[in-house]
Amino acid sequence: MKILVVNAGSSSLKYQLLDMTDESVIAKGNCDRIGIDGHISHKTGDGRSIEADCNFPTHTEAFEKLVEVLTSGDGKVIDSMAEVSAVGHRIVHGGEIFKETCLVNDEIIDKIDDLAELAPVHNHPHALALRACKEVLPEGTPQVAVFDTSFHATMPRKAYLYGLPYDCYEKLHVRKYGFHGTSHRFVSAELAKALGKDIKDLKIVSCHLGNGSSITAVDGGKSVDTSMGFTPLDGLIMGTRCGSIDPSAVEYVAKKLGLAPDEMTAYMNKKSGFLGLSGISSDNRDITAAADSGNERAKIVGEIFTYQIKKFIGSYAAAMNGLDAILFTGGIGENAADVRASVCEDMDIFGIKIDAEANNVRGKLTKISTDDSKVQVWIVPTNEELLIARDTLELVSK
Amino acid sequence: MKILVVNAGSSSLKYQLLDMTDESVIAKGNCDRIGIDGHISHKTGDGRSIEADCNFPTHTEAFEKLVEVLTSGDGKVIDSMAEVSAVGHRIVHGGEIFKETCLVNDEIIDKIDDLAELAPVHNHPHALALRACKEVLPEGTPQVAVFDTSFHATMPRKAYLYGLPYDCYEKLHVRKYGFHGTSHRFVSAELAKALGKDIKDLKIVSCHLGNGSSITAVDGGKSVDTSMGFTPLDGLIMGTRCGSIDPSAVEYVAKKLGLAPDEMTAYMNKKSGFLGLSGISSDNRDITAAADSGNERAKIVGEIFTYQIKKFIGSYAAAMNGLDAILFTGGIGENAADVRASVCEDMDIFGIKIDAEANNVRGKLTKISTDDSKVQVWIVPTNEELLIARDTLELVSK
Repeated sequence: MKILVVNAGSSSLKYQLLDMTDESVIAKGNCDRIGIDGHISHKTGDGRSIEADCNFPTHTEAFEKLVEVLTSGDGKVIDSMAEVSAVGHRIVHGGEIFKETCLVNDEIIDKIDDLAELAPVHNHPHALALRACKEVLPEGTPQVAVFDTSFHATMPRKAYLYGLPYDCYEKLHVRKYGFHGTSHRFVSAELAKALGKDIKDLKIVSCHLGNGSSITAVDGGKSVDTSMGFTPLDGLIMGTRCGSIDPSAVEYVAKKLGLAPDEMTAYMNKKSGFLGLSGISSDNRDITAAADSGNERAKIVGEIFTYQIKKFIGSYAAAMNGLDAILFTGGIGENAADVRASVCEDMDIFGIKIDAEANNVRGKLTKISTDDSKVQVWIVPTNEELLIARDTLELVSK
Repeated sequence: MKILVVNAGSSSLKYQLLDMTDESVIAKGNCDRIGIDGHISHKTGDGRSIEADCNFPTHTEAFEKLVEVLTSGDGKVIDSMAEVSAVGHRIVHGGEIFKETCLVNDEIIDKIDDLAELAPVHNHPHALALRACKEVLPEGTPQVAVFDTSFHATMPRKAYLYGLPYDCYEKLHVRKYGFHGTSHRFVSAELAKALGKDIKDLKIVSCHLGNGSSITAVDGGKSVDTSMGFTPLDGLIMGTRCGSIDPSAVEYVAKKLGLAPDEMTAYMNKKSGFLGLSGISSDNRDITAAADSGNERAKIVGEIFTYQIKKFIGSYAAAMNGLDAILFTGGIGENAADVRASVCEDMDIFGIKIDAEANNVRGKLTKISTDDSKVQVWIVPTNEELLIARDTLELVSK
């Protein structure tokens, strides 16, 4: 069984073709600059690679090129798309409608498109890709939608409701949705496997730290709370996002700087966070390097980031009334040993002890706590594409 | 030594006259409806009371009436204002300028007035009252300013900086200030006394829960973090305030409801919280009664409120790497046994155990945890006026 995984943005269409007999990657790549000009980067599992400029007026042409590259020429890995059992799509926002992975039909594509109001950057391109895929693929190829939000559909109302008037929830659908759900679901399940335990018996704090970061309380395999909110802006300070701030500060800063609402939203999403505080970069590696060479504002970023993570761990330990394990994933979580060490330092109240030597590792499933640590701390590499492929396979095999 | 304590709002001037030999209240009252018409309510420590309609075009006339009532007629408690050693003023916002209680002069009044931009509802009336007081009182009567924010001046930058661009902090002074500082300082010191311990050795989470609510992490007697932020809107859900929400939701809701920035700020401050979620009332007593008779939205309010408090306790336990005691104060904190019980329920991770019988009490300094609870939990009645009077006395006695 071969599954194609698609992650579409407004001008890009990332893909992976997986062989589900051994979960290996047959090929992966990106159709980029859609609507601008067009470029494809394609790599096969056996080491061949293709780079080509193209003409991608819409996602449909990009999808046609993707089919061409997979089935012919130097990057060929299959004879025809008939070999692909199904296509799994990453969909950022499922609103309150999509609480789990589902098979796609025209009505569902329209509903995903309707949710664009809640995720303007993501959902409309997802719908475009779903339609393009349907147009180009052999008739009857199942398409499956896997939502970033659906893992969080199990949150209780005390966690997802804001203190705004109830109409904001009921009529405007303003609530905490949470994101990175596919990642949190994947890594928490992987961790349970590594611990040799049933996930139903575990209370896990899952820290997905990357350019976007979120922390989720996973109790018995279910998300019970998460740091991102109505949008992926809320929660932790991130590469270019401010995270939680006093809501009064939004109007105050907008007024002071003369920013229109859309400009203020962009200011909080694109100019803030690591970048805005440090004035250096949105990339944690640059921040760490600058801090190491004495830059004071880079040091501030590191202090705030780790402090906020600590506080989320504490609050979710209280929310779950227990803490068996903490996991780190994502670009920063998997690679930045110093961030992991700082987060776990001075956490004796929870009985957390880190093994400095074990922690000195990158991107590998690793236990980094000592054997006498009350809480197990692990690095768990994420693989959202694999989870999407697994979900897709499961659904079409039913 | 007699100290007059003043708490001025835009249309009110609350006061208490204290005898500092035994810290007893000689008289207290409120000059209300300033700028509208005018009314004074006045009570003496020995049980006399006065109610009178007046003419208060400005705070000056209100202050003149206050002097008249204290020194003559049925409410008389002193022969002349010369008996008053000093006046202590509650000032809401000290910005980054005022990190401690200080003697007032003209320059300081102007600086307090300048901070009105950060606290538009409060600081300008404070300045008016300070000027009125100077005009009416015998020359040379010392005036002292005690700031709600100053207890939080000890917060480290990792706690008070937001993830906004650094210019927002440096040029616009947007940061977490924290409020209720006078209360948190008073009750945490009272708790240390009750425990017979040096406050330097204690890690306390102080929960001031009332119509406005805030939670402070008090480590060694110093505020190291607090839930209110740039303004008193942030943090917990409150009577009419939304507390923390995704900053993206501010512009989203404003746009959807067609609210101008000032209207949106008012919406979040006056129409949200308990009131907006329940549609019933901003008063916790009404909410509890409605929840008890089965109202679903009132139940939601209770769930959210206690859940958010739990999470703050957990996050501050992590921030301090320890938790010796939790205290409840304020109108709800001192009186709502059910809120205290719900907050402390299912907190075994911290070793918290409540004594249900001891908890069945109102507004009295009481230990409500069991003897084998790892964390001591107390009710500690707040008395901001007394702390202001003590601060004032201390400063003028130097």
